[in-house]
Amino acid sequence: MGLATGAPVVVEVLRGEAVESRHLGALAVVHAAGALHMAWGDVDRPVFPRSAVKLLQALPLVTSGAADAFALSDAELALACASHSGEPAHVATAQGWLARLGLTAEHLECGTQWPAREPVLRALAARGEVAGPLHNNCSGKHCGFLCLACHLCPRSGGADPAGFARGYVAREHPVMREVTRALELTTGQDLARAPRGIDGCSIPTYALPLRALALAFARVGTGSGLPPDAATAAARLRRAVAKAPFMVGGTDRFDTQVMQALGERLCCKVGAEGVYCASLPELGLGLALKIEDGASRAAEAVMAEIALQLLRPSGETGALLHRLAAPVLRNWRGTEVGRLRVRMGN
Amino acid sequence: MGLATGAPVVVEVLRGEAVESRHLGALAVVHAAGALHMAWGDVDRPVFPRSAVKLLQALPLVTSGAADAFALSDAELALACASHSGEPAHVATAQGWLARLGLTAEHLECGTQWPAREPVLRALAARGEVAGPLHNNCSGKHCGFLCLACHLCPRSGGADPAGFARGYVAREHPVMREVTRALELTTGQDLARAPRGIDGCSIPTYALPLRALALAFARVGTGSGLPPDAATAAARLRRAVAKAPFMVGGTDRFDTQVMQALGERLCCKVGAEGVYCASLPELGLGLALKIEDGASRAAEAVMAEIALQLLRPSGETGALLHRLAAPVLRNWRGTEVGRLRVRMGN
Repeated sequence: MGLATGAPVVVEVLRGEAVESRHLGALAVVHAAGALHMAWGDVDRPVFPRSAVKLLQALPLVTSGAADAFALSDAELALACASHSGEPAHVATAQGWLARLGLTAEHLECGTQWPAREPVLRALAARGEVAGPLHNNCSGKHCGFLCLACHLCPRSGGADPAGFARGYVAREHPVMREVTRALELTTGQDLARAPRGIDGCSIPTYALPLRALALAFARVGTGSGLPPDAATAAARLRRAVAKAPFMVGGTDRFDTQVMQALGERLCCKVGAEGVYCASLPELGLGLALKIEDGASRAAEAVMAEIALQLLRPSGETGALLHRLAAPVLRNWRGTEVGRLRVRMGN
Repeated sequence: MGLATGAPVVVEVLRGEAVESRHLGALAVVHAAGALHMAWGDVDRPVFPRSAVKLLQALPLVTSGAADAFALSDAELALACASHSGEPAHVATAQGWLARLGLTAEHLECGTQWPAREPVLRALAARGEVAGPLHNNCSGKHCGFLCLACHLCPRSGGADPAGFARGYVAREHPVMREVTRALELTTGQDLARAPRGIDGCSIPTYALPLRALALAFARVGTGSGLPPDAATAAARLRRAVAKAPFMVGGTDRFDTQVMQALGERLCCKVGAEGVYCASLPELGLGLALKIEDGASRAAEAVMAEIALQLLRPSGETGALLHRLAAPVLRNWRGTEVGRLRVRMGN
């Protein structure tokens, strides 16, 4: 058990028996009441959480009443919290949602992204199709933003939801102001004072200490420290994600596999540049981690390792997490050439 | 100017004005006579050079007489030193070479790889084709191994080159023994004592100090310290690469762009897991670098920065290297969201 100034997590990449590459990371595990439970590395340095906080960003979709007004399904709510692979089920769900809003893919401001998973990309190209904004891993989150805009528009005295929604990725847009408030509410941080950047999908992203991000996920996992409507909304989103984990990622994706196995015991989400955030409701804990160099392979291994240590799953779920915590590396012929090894000494 | 124990190279990944991620690297610049010219980080720790030493591995193809016997073109010699993108020109060159040997793609033991560059992969899938061993980034190197096998076969008293070649990726195969000897000759290292692993394309890879890898590239850039036949072979391979830089990489690839601009002034080669090796013949220097976490984006930026510092190119070539040393990062909509920054203080 370390303190905030403990040694970093180390992830070694082995080729044969030799260490070929090495990743360093920081990790905070925090109680819902705010106390640090465990820490590795510097958990007070600001980190851009990127897509790891999509569940927090989706809270206003529920607390505003938009989710009820548009009768959102678990699949749609999960898609709002997703970094999906752009597979047919993701695209169809986003498309159906937009249609119910009276909108189309043209209203999405996330940009076009070809699916990041090679087999998905190949299948799309082989069908003679081209990618569009619906395939963007953030299209579900952006459907959520558009849905919130459609809900806020009449309240704001407007009659043209599409017009009202335009430019929703801007920091000063009413939709993004709601999203910012949800981040402030859950993390307890003043985002006006946080380092700011533009995210991959064009919305603002704010750098926050891992300790504060972990606290936010302890809160959304327990409801503790949140107003009742936010606590209820968080529970609803977590349930939706647990019921539709494919929507959050896709075929062979880490988050999908882990949440298919663990259900509501773990609500975890990857972010670009080596970030993970997660709630562990039964323990009243939240966690946030960042691999310093931004490597996803290391972030996933550490996420699996800490889930093993904290949840101690048995049977097939335990075996899955052991595989993900120490993944085998194979070359183009399928020969085993190495593996990852997480070191969490302190 | 640092010493072997100097501070590492740091590559910062900026989002807005904040550092989002950070890479550390080691870099050795060595004179052909063996003296260390500049160093950052630990240049004595063994590093798997991976594909960065393909030019060294191609030396026996020339010194054995195989290149002359089969009248290899510059494009073919460059392809033997390549980690190519599997574009039509690469595939056609490999295929033509194999046909002249009386062999086919089935004799390649590198495994199947879909092109790593997304547009190339998409184009292949959109044509309704599937990838095979010819698309593997190492297929040219393996054509070289097969060509060497065809040349060695009659000398070994055999009459069945395809049979003789079978299993050429194994460490004890006559072809691989020649390749190992070339690595030992140029680096001055005893590979029997080096940490060993299996490379992505199934041949052995040996971990060697950056200092020794840099020395090898100073030697192949100058001929100094090499037997005459190896010096001549190295010069021929460097010329071939400079004449056919597209073959070494492909569209928009770092090595291709840089060598198209610099010609014979720089012979550089990327390796997996954040490695670069290069010869700078006019300065009598070789260099080798490794990003600790294996990130290619950082390795490329450092390679561009050190080329700028050592070669001081002007005009368009200088501008290209400045762009590659501090690349701009854009999101899915093309908005500039950050950049890389190399710090080489000591």
